[in-house]
Amino acid sequence: MTYCLGILLKDGLVLASDSRSNAGVDQVVRVSKLNLMPQAPDRVISIQSSGNLATTQAVVTTLHEAFGSGEVAHDLRHARTMFEVAGIVGAQLRATVAADADFVTPYGDPSASFLVGGQIEGEPPRLFQVYAAGNFVEASARSPFLQIGETKYGKPILDRLLAPGASLAQAATLALISFDATIRSNLSVGPPIDLVLYRAGGFSMDNLVTVDDADPYWQALRRTYAEGLSALIASLPPPPETWGA
Amino acid sequence: MTYCLGILLKDGLVLASDSRSNAGVDQVVRVSKLNLMPQAPDRVISIQSSGNLATTQAVVTTLHEAFGSGEVAHDLRHARTMFEVAGIVGAQLRATVAADADFVTPYGDPSASFLVGGQIEGEPPRLFQVYAAGNFVEASARSPFLQIGETKYGKPILDRLLAPGASLAQAATLALISFDATIRSNLSVGPPIDLVLYRAGGFSMDNLVTVDDADPYWQALRRTYAEGLSALIASLPPPPETWGA
Repeated sequence: MTYCLGILLKDGLVLASDSRSNAGVDQVVRVSKLNLMPQAPDRVISIQSSGNLATTQAVVTTLHEAFGSGEVAHDLRHARTMFEVAGIVGAQLRATVAADADFVTPYGDPSASFLVGGQIEGEPPRLFQVYAAGNFVEASARSPFLQIGETKYGKPILDRLLAPGASLAQAATLALISFDATIRSNLSVGPPIDLVLYRAGGFSMDNLVTVDDADPYWQALRRTYAEGLSALIASLPPPPETWGA
Repeated sequence: MTYCLGILLKDGLVLASDSRSNAGVDQVVRVSKLNLMPQAPDRVISIQSSGNLATTQAVVTTLHEAFGSGEVAHDLRHARTMFEVAGIVGAQLRATVAADADFVTPYGDPSASFLVGGQIEGEPPRLFQVYAAGNFVEASARSPFLQIGETKYGKPILDRLLAPGASLAQAATLALISFDATIRSNLSVGPPIDLVLYRAGGFSMDNLVTVDDADPYWQALRRTYAEGLSALIASLPPPPETWGA
């Protein structure tokens, strides 16, 4: 299983993905589910992936290798907007699934989905979710986060506390708390977590960090949150005596 | 959609169910998903239900009407243990689905599942989850809570903080926080919440309360928790500056 999260902010983007691959023949490798397209001065593009690993790798690798090739249908280097980028990712997903589905379906589900985030010069940062069908939706100030994979455990904390005006630091903290909740409730999602705090106009995601269990910030955050939550629950008013407690 | 939760404690049981019915022709009624079998001095039995409403009502009503009838296959009044009770509920579910599935499937999913909780004299309180297949599992000190329906949003808080030695009051508070998380993240789960705090040896669930949005304790609990969580998140350490925040 997988958990990928993208958050669209006034200041930029926070993108986070776990790295646990499903049990099976692919489990010997730690899988990176947050893929950066090649460097370019006028754009930065991230593709986070969930679903069939062969499908997601085929889509991402094809687009990586076609970057700058000039083949309009595949070339994210020359897409004019992030909307076009999301469309190209969706089209590549459809092409891959169309080519493979008949062969793969007897063994498992070939489908996949993506979060596509980044910025192209002239636009603000943008964030899209590409569905298994290849169509897609965009994040906005009113629905500032998108999730794929094992999404539900980590959603309540974001629904409650992700403010539209949150800073990159605040959103990154909430993102990690959302991952903590998911990891505690579902063994198939696990660290390390690939995390990018992208500041609008930076046109680089070189600051991608890989947060593993030994990371001192991750440890401090989890401990502080767990202790604080425990104290909060203990401080809540007890139910009325008439309820029979 | 539905969310039902059962918690097995040393002191007894905490059982909670939402009351929102799916959109559709059944939506004019508030549906009670926490059904108590008739009163009897030596037993108390609750059946919480999720899934196809016609199926769950057929199962519950059949068992309600057969209570005390002496028909061994259906009579929860004469079951010797809660294990037998869970088996009878599972068998009734299988019989109902077998009778209806061919007719219902063209229109939708006929399946259902249940939480069966209660106590029969001579045993401690027990709690079971009856799957759609009619088989079932039992809660224990090591896995003290069971959920059916929309289970994931409300699971992290229970995974984190439900201690094996929790009191009825502590477990009831956590149960309501778990419902609050679910209700905030999923519109199809909604109040009122039917809630029972059952103390072992009491042999009555007459103290069932229906918690709606006007309930002062529910309001105070949600407000206190939301404010406390917001303050906790604001107090967490910020990510390292090297991460680019």
